[in-house]
Parts: sequence; C-alpha cells; structure tokens
Amino acid sequence: MTNGHDPSSELDVKEVRRGRHPGDRYVRVQHTPGFQKVGRGYISVTPRATEPKTFVGKALRSVRRFLIGSPIETAREVHERLTKIKALAILGSDNISSSSYATEEIMRILLLGGISALSLTLPITLAVICVLIIVVISYQQTIRAYPHGASAYIVASNELGKLPGLTAAASLLNDYVLTVSVSIAAGVAALGSAAPFFLGSSAGDFFYNHRVLVSIVLIMIIMIGNLRGVREAGTIFAAPTYIYIISILGLLAYGFYRFASGDLPEYNPPPGWVEEWQHRSLGALSILLILRAFASGSVGLSGTEAISDGVPAFKPPEWKNARITLIFMAGTFGILFLGISFLSGQLHIIPAPEEQETVLSQLARTLVGTGPYYLLVQAATAVVLVLAANTAFSDFPRLAYFLARDGYMPHQFLHRGDRLAFSVGIISLSVIASLLLIIFGGSVTALIPLYTVGVFVAFTLSQSGMVAHWRRQRGKGWRVKAAVNGVGATITGIVAVIVAVTKFSSGVPLFNIGSFTVHAGSWIVLVLVPLMILMLMSIRSHYERAQRELQPEIPINPSDIKHTIIVPVASLNKVALQSLAYAKSISPNVTAIHVVENQEEAEEFRKEWEKFGSPCSLVIMESPYRSLVGPILAYIDAVDRKRPDDTITVVLPEFVPKHWWERLLHNQTALRLKAALLFRPGTVVINVPYHLK
Amino acid sequence: MTNGHDPSSELDVKEVRRGRHPGDRYVRVQHTPGFQKVGRGYISVTPRATEPKTFVGKALRSVRRFLIGSPIETAREVHERLTKIKALAILGSDNISSSSYATEEIMRILLLGGISALSLTLPITLAVICVLIIVVISYQQTIRAYPHGASAYIVASNELGKLPGLTAAASLLNDYVLTVSVSIAAGVAALGSAAPFFLGSSAGDFFYNHRVLVSIVLIMIIMIGNLRGVREAGTIFAAPTYIYIISILGLLAYGFYRFASGDLPEYNPPPGWVEEWQHRSLGALSILLILRAFASGSVGLSGTEAISDGVPAFKPPEWKNARITLIFMAGTFGILFLGISFLSGQLHIIPAPEEQETVLSQLARTLVGTGPYYLLVQAATAVVLVLAANTAFSDFPRLAYFLARDGYMPHQFLHRGDRLAFSVGIISLSVIASLLLIIFGGSVTALIPLYTVGVFVAFTLSQSGMVAHWRRQRGKGWRVKAAVNGVGATITGIVAVIVAVTKFSSGVPLFNIGSFTVHAGSWIVLVLVPLMILMLMSIRSHYERAQRELQPEIPINPSDIKHTIIVPVASLNKVALQSLAYAKSISPNVTAIHVVENQEEAEEFRKEWEKFGSPCSLVIMESPYRSLVGPILAYIDAVDRKRPDDTITVVLPEFVPKHWWERLLHNQTALRLKAALLFRPGTVVINVPYHLK
Repeated sequence: MTNGHDPSSELDVKEVRRGRHPGDRYVRVQHTPGFQKVGRGYISVTPRATEPKTFVGKALRSVRRFLIGSPIETAREVHERLTKIKALAILGSDNISSSSYATEEIMRILLLGGISALSLTLPITLAVICVLIIVVISYQQTIRAYPHGASAYIVASNELGKLPGLTAAASLLNDYVLTVSVSIAAGVAALGSAAPFFLGSSAGDFFYNHRVLVSIVLIMIIMIGNLRGVREAGTIFAAPTYIYIISILGLLAYGFYRFASGDLPEYNPPPGWVEEWQHRSLGALSILLILRAFASGSVGLSGTEAISDGVPAFKPPEWKNARITLIFMAGTFGILFLGISFLSGQLHIIPAPEEQETVLSQLARTLVGTGPYYLLVQAATAVVLVLAANTAFSDFPRLAYFLARDGYMPHQFLHRGDRLAFSVGIISLSVIASLLLIIFGGSVTALIPLYTVGVFVAFTLSQSGMVAHWRRQRGKGWRVKAAVNGVGATITGIVAVIVAVTKFSSGVPLFNIGSFTVHAGSWIVLVLVPLMILMLMSIRSHYERAQRELQPEIPINPSDIKHTIIVPVASLNKVALQSLAYAKSISPNVTAIHVVENQEEAEEFRKEWEKFGSPCSLVIMESPYRSLVGPILAYIDAVDRKRPDDTITVVLPEFVPKHWWERLLHNQTALRLKAALLFRPGTVVINVPYHLK
Repeated sequence: MTNGHDPSSELDVKEVRRGRHPGDRYVRVQHTPGFQKVGRGYISVTPRATEPKTFVGKALRSVRRFLIGSPIETAREVHERLTKIKALAILGSDNISSSSYATEEIMRILLLGGISALSLTLPITLAVICVLIIVVISYQQTIRAYPHGASAYIVASNELGKLPGLTAAASLLNDYVLTVSVSIAAGVAALGSAAPFFLGSSAGDFFYNHRVLVSIVLIMIIMIGNLRGVREAGTIFAAPTYIYIISILGLLAYGFYRFASGDLPEYNPPPGWVEEWQHRSLGALSILLILRAFASGSVGLSGTEAISDGVPAFKPPEWKNARITLIFMAGTFGILFLGISFLSGQLHIIPAPEEQETVLSQLARTLVGTGPYYLLVQAATAVVLVLAANTAFSDFPRLAYFLARDGYMPHQFLHRGDRLAFSVGIISLSVIASLLLIIFGGSVTALIPLYTVGVFVAFTLSQSGMVAHWRRQRGKGWRVKAAVNGVGATITGIVAVIVAVTKFSSGVPLFNIGSFTVHAGSWIVLVLVPLMILMLMSIRSHYERAQRELQPEIPINPSDIKHTIIVPVASLNKVALQSLAYAKSISPNVTAIHVVENQEEAEEFRKEWEKFGSPCSLVIMESPYRSLVGPILAYIDAVDRKRPDDTITVVLPEFVPKHWWERLLHNQTALRLKAALLFRPGTVVINVPYHLK
C-alpha cells in the first residue's frame, strides 16, 4: 500500500496477531463477524461471513452439505502419496477390471465365424497380452523421462507439437468418458448375471430391463462421491481390487485343478443360445473377423495410461515405484485374462446372445455352482468395475484442468469446488457418460467399438513423442531407447488402425434415419475426435483474441472522463427521482429524456416536470410510431456523435419484484433498453434498484 | 423549462418552423438526421433515426415489414364510422355465421334420444329464437343507456361492482377465445365437407385429418391480418357476410319452393350413419336431453354482444343506428336458423357421426347437388366463419385494453404496435385459441359446451346491471325499463344455468388420467372463470402494492448521496483499469477488492497492484474455501453495516462477446455477482462494458 490509510481497518475486524507473544495490551472488538484481519489491507473470510440468510438459501445449503459435505479449506489440501500396494489397486483397477469382460468380447466376435471359431479365443488372448508387454516396456522409458506425469497429452504436446498433443487429448477425453460408460455397463451386467440366482428371476429381469437407469444411478453416486472428494480416501478403495484379484485367482486355481485332474464339470448353454449364434453366423471365419476379435480383446489395454499419468502420486522414488507397479499391474491383468480365456475355452462356454449373463458369471457358476463363492466373484467384479469407472473421475478432470490451463478448455475447469475436487470436470464427465449410456442402451458390446481407438491413438502419439524425445536428446544409448519406444509406437499404431478399420461399423444398430440404420462403431470416434480438436482449438483462439483485443472503451485516467449522463424517465415517481439524484451526484451534465406519442402528452409531462422543480435538463421526444427503445437509442447515438470524447452513461431503474411472475407485469422497456445498450461500446449502464417488499 | 439552456439544441436538429411566413433569413443545417425540433426541449423522431444498422436488424425489419407492413404514425389514426349496412356485416358476422352450425348442434344432442327425436329440432330452434328476441329487446335499453360502449364488463362494473364486473370480463375473455376456436373449427369443417366433391376424396381426408393444422394456419393468417390493422379495411369485410346471407336465403327459398310444390328431393344418409347413431343412442328422450339440445342451440346467441360493444363505431345517432342494426342482425340470424332447421327436418337429414360433413353441406347438396351453387354456399360459409373469428380479434384486445387500463391486466396490453393494433392482445388471443384447438382436436362438438356458458353469464350480469341502473336512476317509467331488463336477466340467467348443468360433461373424451377419462364440458369454464378472476385481481393488487410501496432506496436529493464505491477486480488488465477509472471519476471513496486463495497469491497481486501505481485503496480477501461471490457479498454487507448512510455502488465489467457461446468461456462470476446484488436494496450496480470486435 502506498497511502497511509488502511482500507481493511474500516471493517473493524478482529486482528489475528500471528506469531506474537501473548499478553498484548488490547484486543480489538470484533464489530464485523466473519472476517479476520491477516495484514494491512488483507483480510480472511470465514464461513460465517458467507452463510446464507434466506430460507431457500439455507435449505439449498443443507442439501448441498448433506450430499457433498462441508467445504474444505484450500490450506487443508493433502497430497497423500501412494504405496505400490495401494497404487496397484487404485490406479490399476481400470486395467485389471477389464479382464472381466475382455475374453467375452473376443468370443462374441469369433462366434460370427461359427461355434468352432471359439477355439481361436486363446491365441487371440495371447496376442493381446504380447501387445500389452510391448506397451509396458515402452512405458518404462516414458515414466523415467516424465516423472512429473506422462499423460499422452503432455508428452505429445511437448515432443511433437500442438496438433498431436490435442489429438492425444481429444482421444483421451473420449476414452475417459467411455471408461465410465463401459465399466458401469459391465458392472451392471455382472449384477444382472448374478441377481436371478440370489434375488429371483424378477430381480434379474429388473437389472436387465432397467440397466440404463441402474447405470445412471451408479454414475450419480460415483459423481457425488467424487464431489465429496473420495479420491483422497485411499485405503477403502484398495480392498475391492484385491478381493477381485484374489477371488478370480482362486476360481482359476480351482478350475486348473479340476482341469489337471481331468474332471472339469459339464457346461450346457441355456436352450436356444447355440441356435441363435448359428443363426447370426456369417458362415465362414475370415481374416477380418479374426482381426476384429483381436481388436475387441485389445480393450484390455485400457487403463494402462493411469499409472504413467499418476507418477507424481507415488512415494519416492516415484518413477521407480511407478515402473514396478506398471509391471505388476500388467502381470496381474495378463494372468487373469489368460486364465479366464483358457478355462472358458476348455468348458466350451458360449456368451449370452443378448448379454443376459456374462461369460465370467457362467464360468464361475459352472465351476463352483451358484453358492457363496459365486456371489463373491460377481460382487467383487461389479465393485471393481465401478471402481474402474472411478479412475476416470480423477483422470478426466485432471486432463481437463491441464487443457484449461493451456487455454483449450473453458476456465471453469480450473476451479475447485467446496471439497477441492474439480467439480465442473466431474459433473461434465457424469453427464456425458450418462448420455452415452442412454444412446447406446447400456450395452457393453455396442460401446466397446468406440472404446479402444482412443486408447491406442494416445499410446501411439505418446510413444512417437518419446522417439522424438530420444532423437532430440541424443544421450547415451539413445538409439536403443528410441527403438524400444519406436516398436511400441508401431505396434500400438497398427492396433489403432486395426481397431478403427475392423470396428468401423459394429453391426449393432443405434437408430434409423428413414430406412437407413446407423450402427455403433469406431467411425463415431473418428468423427468426434477431429470435432473435439476443432473445439479445443477454437476455444483457445477465442481466449487469445479476447486477451489481444481487450481495448479500453472509456478513458483509463479518471480525469479524462467527461460525463454525459442520460436518464430515460417513464413517469415522475420516486423511482425516477432517485435515478435522477444518483445521476446528478456523478455529474451536473444530466439530461432526462421522456418519450411521448403526441403534443398533449408532452405538455402534460412538462407541467408535471416543472411541478417537480425541473431537476435537470429535459428532452421530450415525440415518437410518432409509438416505439420507445428505438428513439432513446437514436438519441444516445446522436449525443455520442455530437460529443465523441464524452463517456456516455445511461441510468436505468431496475425493478426487482418478489416473485418471478411479477416481472411480466412491469414494462419490459428498461430490460430491452439494457439489452440494446449492451452492444454499444463505451456506454456505461447504471442500474438503480427498487424493490417490492 | 426554467433554465435558459435548451437541451435539445445540443443535437443541432433542423428546426421546423411551423406556421411562419416563408422567406425566413436562415435555415439551420441538419447535423443530426432523423430528428426534428418541434419546440424548446421537444424533438420529434423520424423513422430514419431508428433504422436498424446491423444486417440481422435490417433482415428482421424486412420480414416484419413484409408481414405487418410499415409502421403507421399515431397521428394518422382514423376513426371510420360504420353505416348500418357495414355494421351488420362486420359486427354481426359472428352472430349471423352461427346459423351455419346451430341447427346441427341441436340435432347431434337430440339423436342421443333416438332418430325420431330429431322432430324436436324445430321447436327447440323456436325456443332459442324466443330467447334471442328477449335479449334483443333488453339490449335496446342497454345501448341507449351506454352509448359509449356497453361491454358487459363496463356495465357490470359500473352498476354492480368490482366482482360482477370481473366475472363478466373473465366470461367474455373466455368467450372471445372460444369464438375464434369454434368459428375456425366450423369453417374448416365447411371446407372439409365441400372438398371431396371438388378436389377429390383425398383433399377431403386431408382437411379432416389435418383440421387442427389447417385451423392454426388460418388463425395465424387472421392474426397477421389484424397486426396489419385490417380491422380498418371495412368494405371488403362486408361482402362475405352478405354473400353468405344471400346464398343461404336463396337456398332456403329454393327449398321452400320445392317443399311447397311437394317435390322435395330424397335424402339418403351415407351407409352406417344411422346404425352409428342408433348405437350411440341412450334409449329414450329425456327432459335433460331436450334441455341439453336447447343449450347447444343457444350458441346462436353468441356475438350479440358485438353490436352493443361497438356502439361508438356507428355513425351518429350512434345508439339509434346500433339499435336498428341489432334488430336486423337478430332478424337475419333468426330467419336463416329457422329455415335451416325446418328444411333439415323435412329432408330428415342426419348429422355425420364423426363430423365428416356438416348438416348445412348435406342440406345444400341434397337440394341443389354438388354444382357451383353448392360450392358458393360452402365457400361463403367458410369465409363468414373465418370473419366471425375475426370479430373476436377486435373484441378481445379491446376488453384486455379496458382491463389493463383498470390495472387488471398487464400494462403490455395498453400498447399499440406498429400498425396501431393492440399487438399483445392479438397475439395472446391467437396463441390461446390455437392451444384450445390442439387440446380439443379441432372438434366443434367438443368445443361447443365451453362456448355458451360465458356468453350467458355476461348477458345475465350486464342485464342485471341495467336493472340496478334503472332502480338507481328512478327516471320516468323506470319500472317498465327495469322489468324489461329484468326479464332479459332472468331468461339469460336460466339459460346460463341450463347450459352449465346440461353441458357440465359433454361425453366427448379429452384425455385419460390412468383409467379415468376427462371429458370436455362446461365444467372447464366453471373452473377457468374463477381462476381468471383470481388472476385479474392479483394482477391489480400487485400493481397497487407496487405503486404504494415505491419507496426510494437511495436519497432523492443528490447532495445527500454519499458514495462508497466497490470495484471487484479479478486481474489487473485494461478492463479492470477502466472500471477503476470510472469509479474514481464519481467519487474518491473507491475500494478495489480482490479475492485470493492463499497468501502467495495475495503477495503477487499486491506487487502487480503497486506496479500499476496503486490506483485506489485495495482490500485483498483470502477465501479459504475458494468461493468468490460469497466473500464479496459479505464484504459489501460489512461495509453497509459500517456506513449505513452511504449509497453503495458496485462497479462491474460487462463482457460482451460476439457469439453467444463465447459467453460460456468467460467466468460467470460477474454475472452471478450481478444477480446476487439485484436482491440487495439500495445497492447501485454500474456496468462498464468491454466488447470483442
């Protein structure tokens, strides 16, 4: 502060003397509750100051507090570091949980080549695991090079430039939304599969028939949880992933034991399923079909990003722990995936044509019957899938934050809500994922073709970025490093192309336009991602333009401001008088204007005006066509032309009724005038309020 | 004006020297086009001044001009007086046109008592005509007593008080809306009846299947016509009524000639109609059914109000001409109605069960075949019915104007649009009538039970008012006069009750709530009218309260205003600087406030502030919970408590983007702050704009 007066002292706020010895001779009385003085001209606001005063405000706050919890101070933000054990569960749940549906997705495609084609399930599973191994090796290097978080957006922007960065970002945003939709849909499918055996067939029907509704309710619960900041809760979120891993490992071990001892139980598909698949069969198994099945299985690689994104969240040495966790995650996923594929093949399990029951449910049921162990497997699967959706609730708002920081997304994504969570990102994700579920009718199979493209595009760009990174650095052994990432980029690039081409149209009908049926497929992503890139870029260019074109419209030196104040007056009541008084308190150069329809009205108004003591100059305008706003604007224009150096201010009364409908009863002229003045550069509008009690 | 300076001279407007001799020595140059100086501080605005400047503005104006026409100056308003010939056509079209469907409405009810009950059509027609005669005699006196317009609202308010007046008003508003709906639906039915014979059966199906759509298109055309001000066109509107009268009289004369000569043609109802009516028959004819049929026929009295409403529009002696026209109108209606009922009975015509063809159409077709004369009758009927709807477009806005003048309707109904028409009233009527047609599926028979109650309630109140009038005046022969109006009031009151009771539920299903079917019927009016009265009264009480409670919130003496100006500053750019400059140009007592999350941000901002030369006092507020609006409001509250005598002004920057979506990209804080400040009495808000080019 340059002047001697302390403006904050005006509030008589209680001074908090930080770090002083006790026993000061006086304590100032706190006249203004809710504020604490921290320093000269620097006060801190306590929740008490911002408490709602109205009944509605209080009620709204209560609902909000109930759902979201009390606000958390920024200062209380803690950055809990993750151990490898916790990280595997929390960051790895997305990837590990996909083992619960990856096998089924391969089988559903192979069946189109006939029942016998199911024998290819295992080889395709192995191929997917090979790709995963390559990706994991490649990412070992990325994690080392980007210890502060190796999001594909950051790596690609840094190493390859703006457009590749935005492509990775758009692919990832898309992918995070699908993580939520797919995981929730799969979780609801797991619930729906188990329900008939425990809650009766009507419960099964309920979950199946209302799967979209159940899914949206689950998303809302996760959303509220995230708005509360459950992300920080940690430990309780580790449990379900381990329960899932252990229960499936137990199931697989038991299955292998039965397989090894040669007494695998017999599996009989429900009546009609085999016929239905034979009916759907395209006749022969083609290379394209095999590639499609591989593309479907590649969904198992989703969620691999989570660990490289979250490197800074690990305990030090961060990069080392992240690397090890990534290997453990991939290993766990690989074992579960392989085991499920192998045993399903040995048992000759057939997927349910209408997704009534999952393959994993059939596998568990065949091996252990519909007892408590089966229930454990299904429950653990459902919970881990919901948890997988939960990871996207950290990833999406974080990426949106990065993008907003760089000006590619609206500023709103920068703000943290009451509980320090990025509320706007969390709510946006929930809404978009719910819409997707509605559009796709909650079908995992319809959503899958959209899911995988984005992941692989991001992989490819991030890995290519690393190649560029090593080439630029040319450090020790750079050729080997570049080669490793190069192989990763090439393989994931090939998979991206395979997924895009083979899943271009999935055959799952979405809706009809006339006689033309629109099918779900990767084409949706191929259309959406460029559109999203365009949107991100136009948002940035808007912000840049806004910053560049920020020209003052009135002088920025107070003494350069010459006031011309115009006060439209409808009738001479107290409202008009207070507007005029306010105008005159600013400047003597005030003109009241009044619009009339004819000379008689003009005479009458002038008489009244004189009775009121002619508070300022008055211009009466005759509007032969009865319009009000037009003549006033024209008058302002004319005055502006006459005195171009003046700052024109229009003083308008603002009527504030008690009820919204009462607004309709008052002439909308002031409102329309205000809207019109909005588009006049350099015109200041002063609203003098009047309220009805 | 009391001071010597002429404020309007600032504009350098061309002076129009009215009434001076030519050859004045100078002519002032017109620096400000679009304005004309009329007197000291009194200028007139020409259309040139209010011409739109933007492309969109110009395009909108062109569309408006094309549809509505160029604006008309108030001064050019002409009050064309009506001759009796014109008045009969223009004011009488509503009443006379109802002869085209009154017979049918009676028959449709009687048929419920069996085919033989149709023989009662003629007696009931005569009963309705008797009531009409009583009403006409009674109104002779009303017209004489209220030569300036004897609207039931005015008569009842004047003579009986507020509540009866509003009851009459609500009934009439309701009735005018139904005039439009019923007349248009009947007009479309006339078109639909004739279409199959001239345009092929598919055209008939089109009119029948799309009757709601066709009706709404017709209403829109009439609406645009009325916004253009066709009301004043006069002569062309007289023609269709006379064509209708003459063509029907011709038809009836021919029919009587054939009847008298004993060779009436044979009528055969289309196959299935008789069976359908027998199927619908309730078995026996009851008194209730006869009363219902009478109530249905009473629709023929609608439109009688129009002439007594419009007395001032007649050439002098207004009341005398109006009286004569009323008699002629009733006479014409009576003859047409009676003739149609008589011949329909003689021919044993049966109404179409699904309203596919009107009775009048069947009558004409049977008598003269589907030749050109039939086409003339149908076309004239359709046009006259549309014209009947048109009368409501004068009546409704005029009544709304009276009500708005008395504070019972929103002020908007007082304003006249570009073409001097009451635009708000016209548009409201169109929208409500269209909604009714949609709800009732465009069926005349479903709408009729709602129609008649309002008319008779208004008749009763207006007539009762007249009884009170004579009793109060006690002039010569007042007892006779009171007796005449008393008989009118009694009879119309009885009819009102009959209509309300017998039509309470018409049996025409409207929609289902669960297994409960809601039927159309007069109950809708009995519910709506009290609700409308309540609405009218609460609008009035709102206006009264608004006037009474208009208390100034800031001093009305400029020298009493002590400014405290608060400028929330988000970041120190040119936008903030211009807001601060504006604030300082008003008063030196300016405080900038800035909200931070922590002490580092505070330090940073303070440094920047000092770099900008510390333009005024600065208060930095730490918001530990990251909210922005709450702390600013709390600060304003605290300042207000500290300095209760000051007028607090908040200066906010107003960002105006080029495109609406760009608004979403800018922080909504200013907007939310503005919304919150709206509810703070006595807080002035100044908007300093900045635009993006």
